Amino acid sequence: MEQKIKSVFLKLEQKNLDGFILSSPANISYLTDYRSRDSYLLISKKENIYFTDSRYIEEAKNNLSPKFSVKKINGSIFKLISGACCALGLKRVGFEERYLPFAEYQKIKEGLNQRINLVPFYGLVEELRQLKSPEELEKIKKAIQITIAALKFAQDFITPGRKEIEVAAELERFIRYHGAYASSFDIIVACGANSSFPHHISSERKIKNHEPVLIDIGVDYLGYKSDLTRVLFFGKINVYVTKIYNIVRQAQDRAIRKIKPGIPIKEIDAAARQYIKQKGFGGFFSHNLGHGVGLEVHEEPQISPKVDDKLIPGMVFTIEPAIYLANKFGIRWEDMVLVTQKGYQVL
Amino acid sequence: MEQKIKSVFLKLEQKNLDGFILSSPANISYLTDYRSRDSYLLISKKENIYFTDSRYIEEAKNNLSPKFSVKKINGSIFKLISGACCALGLKRVGFEERYLPFAEYQKIKEGLNQRINLVPFYGLVEELRQLKSPEELEKIKKAIQITIAALKFAQDFITPGRKEIEVAAELERFIRYHGAYASSFDIIVACGANSSFPHHISSERKIKNHEPVLIDIGVDYLGYKSDLTRVLFFGKINVYVTKIYNIVRQAQDRAIRKIKPGIPIKEIDAAARQYIKQKGFGGFFSHNLGHGVGLEVHEEPQISPKVDDKLIPGMVFTIEPAIYLANKFGIRWEDMVLVTQKGYQVL
Repeated sequence: MEQKIKSVFLKLEQKNLDGFILSSPANISYLTDYRSRDSYLLISKKENIYFTDSRYIEEAKNNLSPKFSVKKINGSIFKLISGACCALGLKRVGFEERYLPFAEYQKIKEGLNQRINLVPFYGLVEELRQLKSPEELEKIKKAIQITIAALKFAQDFITPGRKEIEVAAELERFIRYHGAYASSFDIIVACGANSSFPHHISSERKIKNHEPVLIDIGVDYLGYKSDLTRVLFFGKINVYVTKIYNIVRQAQDRAIRKIKPGIPIKEIDAAARQYIKQKGFGGFFSHNLGHGVGLEVHEEPQISPKVDDKLIPGMVFTIEPAIYLANKFGIRWEDMVLVTQKGYQVL
Repeated sequence: MEQKIKSVFLKLEQKNLDGFILSSPANISYLTDYRSRDSYLLISKKENIYFTDSRYIEEAKNNLSPKFSVKKINGSIFKLISGACCALGLKRVGFEERYLPFAEYQKIKEGLNQRINLVPFYGLVEELRQLKSPEELEKIKKAIQITIAALKFAQDFITPGRKEIEVAAELERFIRYHGAYASSFDIIVACGANSSFPHHISSERKIKNHEPVLIDIGVDYLGYKSDLTRVLFFGKINVYVTKIYNIVRQAQDRAIRKIKPGIPIKEIDAAARQYIKQKGFGGFFSHNLGHGVGLEVHEEPQISPKVDDKLIPGMVFTIEPAIYLANKFGIRWEDMVLVTQKGYQVL
């Protein structure tokens, strides 16, 4: 935690900032090593202040390191934040432009005296969070283990006639008995034509024989997330479905085998996307190939044709090529990969 | 839906606005009668445009009324929004100041030509959402029925030795078999001293005999939420715990009996708060008495000493007085109440 705070100060100094207001729960959790909810964090050389309300105050006091002073929100949080900036004599205070709503920005600004500058800042903590420490990796691996166990359980549990929502129910129960705190997003169980909608909402539809069942599931283990997708098959599989399935698996394999430090992210995306295109399904895979996973299910880096960055050891992200044939069926296959010093590790 | 859009236009005209950009998922869901995710909505006299990305586009097309044109986000959503504002010839466009991050505001603003004004706006749709229609009430009531069934199930299921997280697991499973889509927030199961933290995270702690078990649970039924808290007892109850329990129940009763149209919201809060204070526990009940519930678990109105509004028929909110004795135990009791023409109905 002290190392993280130091890294933040280093970046602040580069930008000539002497304070930083955080409002993203994941970024605050990262810096405090504590599952933060409904809080704000002010970082400065003199004092780091964690602001939260009466619902969390006792818990925060019990759990936060003495590096953070805990202040109870009583009245306006924005006055409290701007008051603290004034009291600490700050001059240039950064804020998270992606996580501070316009109205909150205005309110904090109003409370500052005219000598203090409020400076929009992007991606400071997100950038640190991209590279996972060994401790973080352990938690992510454990989250993945629970998820894989849940998928195996689903394979045994599902029989034709079961409703999508019932499968989601059993998975929600299963993961908690196996060490997870909760699912990290609404579990997607999509059978037949429903699988053609990438983010289908699990429904009352019953699973029929001979159709694909797409399950997209992730769990939260000590704050760290997992995210995996599998397509299960029951009964006889249509030749066309098998063909699409093979293309998607092959596309994933091509992308994963390209992963190593220094490779441009867009090349990873291209490896899968071009293969799918070459097979004639370019128009049916429209989302990014993947996304970072850690304290959030979707975080940096985005594995997208639009990203100009290169891979760095310690990055963890999904590789999830897909082909969606609207109102017919869809196949997505998603794994999580770590960039290692020499190449990659499928987690 | 058409009535809702009309009400929005009426409010826009009062503010001399000819367009409105929505970014709150709940507000967009309300206006479109569709469970919206990762979308933006532009309302204007000429055209209402629903912007979403490839993951949701087919589903949105299948489900949205023809009153909305669906546009696929391909590249920058912000350029797309500002481009649409320009193409429609808008002059003064409102946006949701509480739901648009500073960075997104800046990007939309950059894309607008200089004749277009971007105007911060607060609570337009939230105000409409406060008053529930009969159709909305039906969904809320159904959500509550499922929640009550789940609490009864918990009462039978829990035995000393069960872990908090296991109880949460069983509840998560139960509600999905009984018609809910999912829980509407992480179910809180807090036994013994854990119950003294208002938003405890369900843990591996085992429930012991003779201690209170606080369960705070809500479900999502067709998008509408419920939120109830009960404290269950197993074994012998300490006299002091019983005393606190009775004060909380009495405080709730006093607040609920005051509910009728025209009464200032702060009087409802005061009825419970003053009773708790008078009994000597004023310092141990620090959060608001309640909050609105509908498409979101926390929405308007806030039942708080700081609110100046009065009750209106159709409002639905929680009444949840509590006494938290830090690191000892806590009692909270939460019901949902509807303001009727003549008084109230506990839902």
